Amino acid sequence: MKKILVVEPVFLDGVESEVEYLDAIKEPDTAVEFVSLESGPTSVETYYDEAFVLADTLRVIEAHAGGADAVVINCFADPGVIAARELLDIPVVGPSEASMALAMQMAHRFAVVSVYENSVALTELQARARGIESRLAGVIGIELGVCELEEDIENTTRLLIEAARELVDVKGAEAIVLGCTGMVPAAAGLRAALDVPVIEPLSAAFKTAEAMVTLGLVHAHKGQYRRPDLSKLKS
Amino acid sequence: MKKILVVEPVFLDGVESEVEYLDAIKEPDTAVEFVSLESGPTSVETYYDEAFVLADTLRVIEAHAGGADAVVINCFADPGVIAARELLDIPVVGPSEASMALAMQMAHRFAVVSVYENSVALTELQARARGIESRLAGVIGIELGVCELEEDIENTTRLLIEAARELVDVKGAEAIVLGCTGMVPAAAGLRAALDVPVIEPLSAAFKTAEAMVTLGLVHAHKGQYRRPDLSKLKS
Amino acid sequence: MKKILVVEPVFLDGVESEVEYLDAIKEPDTAVEFVSLESGPTSVETYYDEAFVLADTLRVIEAHAGGADAVVINCFADPGVIAARELLDIPVVGPSEASMALAMQMAHRFAVVSVYENSVALTELQARARGIESRLAGVIGIELGVCELEEDIENTTRLLIEAARELVDVKGAEAIVLGCTGMVPAAAGLRAALDVPVIEPLSAAFKTAEAMVTLGLVHAHKGQYRRPDLSKLKS
Amino acid sequence: MKKILVVEPVFLDGVESEVEYLDAIKEPDTAVEFVSLESGPTSVETYYDEAFVLADTLRVIEAHAGGADAVVINCFADPGVIAARELLDIPVVGPSEASMALAMQMAHRFAVVSVYENSVALTELQARARGIESRLAGVIGIELGVCELEEDIENTTRLLIEAARELVDVKGAEAIVLGCTGMVPAAAGLRAALDVPVIEPLSAAFKTAEAMVTLGLVHAHKGQYRRPDLSKLKS
Amino acid sequence: MKKILVVEPVFLDGVESEVEYLDAIKEPDTAVEFVSLESGPTSVETYYDEAFVLADTLRVIEAHAGGADAVVINCFADPGVIAARELLDIPVVGPSEASMALAMQMAHRFAVVSVYENSVALTELQARARGIESRLAGVIGIELGVCELEEDIENTTRLLIEAARELVDVKGAEAIVLGCTGMVPAAAGLRAALDVPVIEPLSAAFKTAEAMVTLGLVHAHKGQYRRPDLSKLKS
Amino acid sequence: MKKILVVEPVFLDGVESEVEYLDAIKEPDTAVEFVSLESGPTSVETYYDEAFVLADTLRVIEAHAGGADAVVINCFADPGVIAARELLDIPVVGPSEASMALAMQMAHRFAVVSVYENSVALTELQARARGIESRLAGVIGIELGVCELEEDIENTTRLLIEAARELVDVKGAEAIVLGCTGMVPAAAGLRAALDVPVIEPLSAAFKTAEAMVTLGLVHAHKGQYRRPDLSKLKS
Repeated sequence: MKKILVVEPVFLDGVESEVEYLDAIKEPDTAVEFVSLESGPTSVETYYDEAFVLADTLRVIEAHAGGADAVVINCFADPGVIAARELLDIPVVGPSEASMALAMQMAHRFAVVSVYENSVALTELQARARGIESRLAGVIGIELGVCELEEDIENTTRLLIEAARELVDVKGAEAIVLGCTGMVPAAAGLRAALDVPVIEPLSAAFKTAEAMVTLGLVHAHKGQYRRPDLSKLKS
Repeated sequence: MKKILVVEPVFLDGVESEVEYLDAIKEPDTAVEFVSLESGPTSVETYYDEAFVLADTLRVIEAHAGGADAVVINCFADPGVIAARELLDIPVVGPSEASMALAMQMAHRFAVVSVYENSVALTELQARARGIESRLAGVIGIELGVCELEEDIENTTRLLIEAARELVDVKGAEAIVLGCTGMVPAAAGLRAALDVPVIEPLSAAFKTAEAMVTLGLVHAHKGQYRRPDLSKLKS
Repeated sequence: MKKILVVEPVFLDGVESEVEYLDAIKEPDTAVEFVSLESGPTSVETYYDEAFVLADTLRVIEAHAGGADAVVINCFADPGVIAARELLDIPVVGPSEASMALAMQMAHRFAVVSVYENSVALTELQARARGIESRLAGVIGIELGVCELEEDIENTTRLLIEAARELVDVKGAEAIVLGCTGMVPAAAGLRAALDVPVIEPLSAAFKTAEAMVTLGLVHAHKGQYRRPDLSKLKS
Repeated sequence: MKKILVVEPVFLDGVESEVEYLDAIKEPDTAVEFVSLESGPTSVETYYDEAFVLADTLRVIEAHAGGADAVVINCFADPGVIAARELLDIPVVGPSEASMALAMQMAHRFAVVSVYENSVALTELQARARGIESRLAGVIGIELGVCELEEDIENTTRLLIEAARELVDVKGAEAIVLGCTGMVPAAAGLRAALDVPVIEPLSAAFKTAEAMVTLGLVHAHKGQYRRPDLSKLKS
Repeated sequence: MKKILVVEPVFLDGVESEVEYLDAIKEPDTAVEFVSLESGPTSVETYYDEAFVLADTLRVIEAHAGGADAVVINCFADPGVIAARELLDIPVVGPSEASMALAMQMAHRFAVVSVYENSVALTELQARARGIESRLAGVIGIELGVCELEEDIENTTRLLIEAARELVDVKGAEAIVLGCTGMVPAAAGLRAALDVPVIEPLSAAFKTAEAMVTLGLVHAHKGQYRRPDLSKLKS
Repeated sequence: MKKILVVEPVFLDGVESEVEYLDAIKEPDTAVEFVSLESGPTSVETYYDEAFVLADTLRVIEAHAGGADAVVINCFADPGVIAARELLDIPVVGPSEASMALAMQMAHRFAVVSVYENSVALTELQARARGIESRLAGVIGIELGVCELEEDIENTTRLLIEAARELVDVKGAEAIVLGCTGMVPAAAGLRAALDVPVIEPLSAAFKTAEAMVTLGLVHAHKGQYRRPDLSKLKS
């Protein structure tokens, strides 16, 4: 029996579709709990947005991580992943980090399709922080915001296919990573149109979290992940 | 229901302990099949050794991959992993590649404990081929051959602890990857002695293979993994 | 006439010493305004701490940047620097980024003396994000917290000298960057003891901000620094 | 009171426009002295040219540096910068190095517009020597020699705008560095046409030199900048 | 007097043209011996192909290296080069490694024209393993198999010229390396059509081998090139 | 028949030993011509020294290259190599570049033993300019000047052995490159004491030059090696 806490680091109305999505891929003995923020931005598209979700995301994690075996933070910006590792003694998995790790095992070079143009720099910085920039073939933003992705799935899918094809044909990408966990509804259409694998980051992070729990792997609180001094927050 | 083919790319007497080892971590609906070579070296410790197992490893894979959902090649040299991907339409996972991918998700820098001194160069070349050399803190060979690892588990464990501590204390490693799939018996002792995670590569590869199957991820036959022309082998 | 807004991204009792410090190096026609947070952590030593200062830091910047010609965020973690650039149309300078930029102009390799051991990874990640990791000779944390640095200046200075000498003698550093803007009181003692330059990051950032204003340089709102959608913050 | 020595490392007729240019941006208490070569090439466009200016540039610096607080060598090839640091105990600033250091503080990737096609390799080598090649989006030479830049400013400006736009639109540059200190007259026109910052290297170097003097920063004579043995020059 | 053993690591009908080719460039006192495989693939175009030639290539080398002063393995995949170095106490030279080493001495960036599209990844992996990926401007496969190259030399030459021109004009390559030792017959035509040097890898490897023999240079059996334990091969 | 021009880029009394040294390794049909400067420094140990030999080195090359098939510039700083390539239509070979290219073909990592401590930075910058810094295990200066190397060969040899052993044992170097072409007299003693290859740069450059001539390889005058405009030198 494992319990995975999936944290939505934004203000959300509901998580029904995510529940169903993970139910279809989880191991039989895995329980999934979803939590989301009660206020704040509805999406993380800039560093500014991220700044306004981090504290609440960590508060929610602190409140709900008891009893959990691993945490997944459901946003491709991986907001708070390092901070949550500092805080916790269970694995914390980021969709961006986990999906890139799988992409590297099935492609010489992978590419990312994302929301806005600024994702090019943001995703390159993620790759550089991980030391894997040489594996990233390119990034294209389709100029749709996170909350617009589900408005017209057909259009979103069409734009993603166009971007992915350019990344495959021109940049030599051999796998496509979806650069937003809100692209789930368009994933099937994209997969049908491409002859390279398409990696959806929430599912990648979730299966990685399950694997870490089974393998008994937890990060250490030495080196990078120093335990924070919780007494420092002024009351 | 998934079926994972685990290939021992060396000549082996038996795989009982590996069967038991993976039984303890596999998902309930996963079937595991083991195959090994009927001749050839008993371990892969040099490029020379590897040259003498590659063709037979691929022959064994070709003969047994029918019906399998994924292949794991059980050696930290990841011998034949790329060639098997060229050949097959199911995921092929290497213990070295999979364990490093997990290590990168729980440590700023990881290190590898290995068998002989030449493993330093070999492991650095693996990391460089994957573009992740900046994440590798160091490699130490304990100067025991693969087949000597199990002769005196206590001694092996002691040597591994010594090497791992140097990598953690001097090189700043925050996770240790076992650089040989024959180090399984010493893993528990090493874990008990260290305050950083220890990643065993066969188990890492196996769980990664299960995850890829669940996620429906398969590499493409374009770019790097061109299908080989089987008619070229002269009869 | 230029006005530089210096933001303390932590909860602070007073900024008298910083006022005096910058008065001594500012250009005659530069006005300096200091602001700090009214609550939150008293220092940023972990990603967790940073998460709890970012939103307030940006709120303070938004409230006070009107009329300013540039912003300096006074913390070596450079918290909120990218987010503030997204928000503003004036230069935003980070002490870490500015001091490393100067260090690179006077040393083949520079090193950083910092507070805790986790600063090694944090500073390496900063350098890697900037693509300058090959210029960083090393980082040593003296295991004193930010707020302990001023408790016993003599002791702090002694520890910094010891760390700096190791970085110069063993790692080949040719310049030392102070890895915390709270090390100002120890800078003179450290300079006296070393035969390599010592770069204090707040002063480096401040002079860089003045230079950018004089040169009329401002980042663009294209590529990385997309303007945030302020309407997204749920009321 | 500071005195900055600006060295023209070529044979020049006059420096009136440079005097005026720096007067407009210098701090009130800064004195500027200009010196140039009395013979030699009129521009540095190749390594061959550079070879014929280096010795005289250093002779001029040696003759005039007494009483100066910093030296700026006014050529984007940064000729003699390292050698002058070996010789002197005051900061020596290169326009290429200083402008790239500022560009990195306002852009994820910057690009350089230059004179001839060979500047692509030369500028890439500069960036690589500084370890910042990952920040350089691209280089385009407009195929006008240094001495032709001022012949028809309008044409020069037009060519620079065309090159800069390609670097911004196709290569993703978020800032443009002028790759020749002779492009000053075209800078205003280029700035007006672009929506990214344009960094002029002489002014960048000059303000950096002033900042270094104020901050009391001087390179060390250990590691890279060994003092030359002046007695070795055979008479 | 030197003797160079040239090994064809594939099944071949004859080596007359190679004999003649090397005769024209060898030093007067150099003897050349050719050996090839008696079975196996007729070309190495995939990792799968390589797996089926490695053991026999090493067997042939072991049988014929006695009396030789150096070994050249005549295939751009450099198959078995590292393994042969483990085995032998004389230099072993690979055409890919040797030709890239020369290309780097006459070009800021070089490019490779190759057979199939998968050569892009394979050649990039070669460059990365050597740590020289920043010098590789690009790779283009002309979609002709190794054995088709000689079927219509004129057509092959035309395709190579087209690919090389794109690499020179678009990617900025300043030298072209032929990515297959079977491209010798097209080299003259390619050279005539280009204004950059064209490096043929077999000849590059051969002259490098002669130079190593003259210089008395042999790799060490420590670090990477551990001597293999020949007793391990099960009989 | 080939003619190689060997240029001593310093003021020298005689070249008898160099003549003899190259006679022993040259091909029978190779003629060697030596030229040296008639004034200037007697060694190149700093960038300052280099600045005072470059123009004369190029003048000497220009005067003597007629009729030569290749040029070798006999100094490990490779002074003027790029400038001479701009000028000439025959190969120009640098001892540092050529010896590192050979070292990379016989070692995973090589190291350099050099004269003064500043050679660490200088050699690292050379490696970085060539994009091969990941292959350089380390550099040690023995704190003897170029002209002191031959004063007491036994002492020089002892110091070189000590430095080389540290580079092999501590830094993992698998080959040693002599970082000064004046170390020829100590090479034999060093070779006898080490179990890794020792590469002497003048001989490496000379044999590379011969190979380039035989192979008909010459750099192009496009990209990096633009022809200099000789009319620019003011008379």
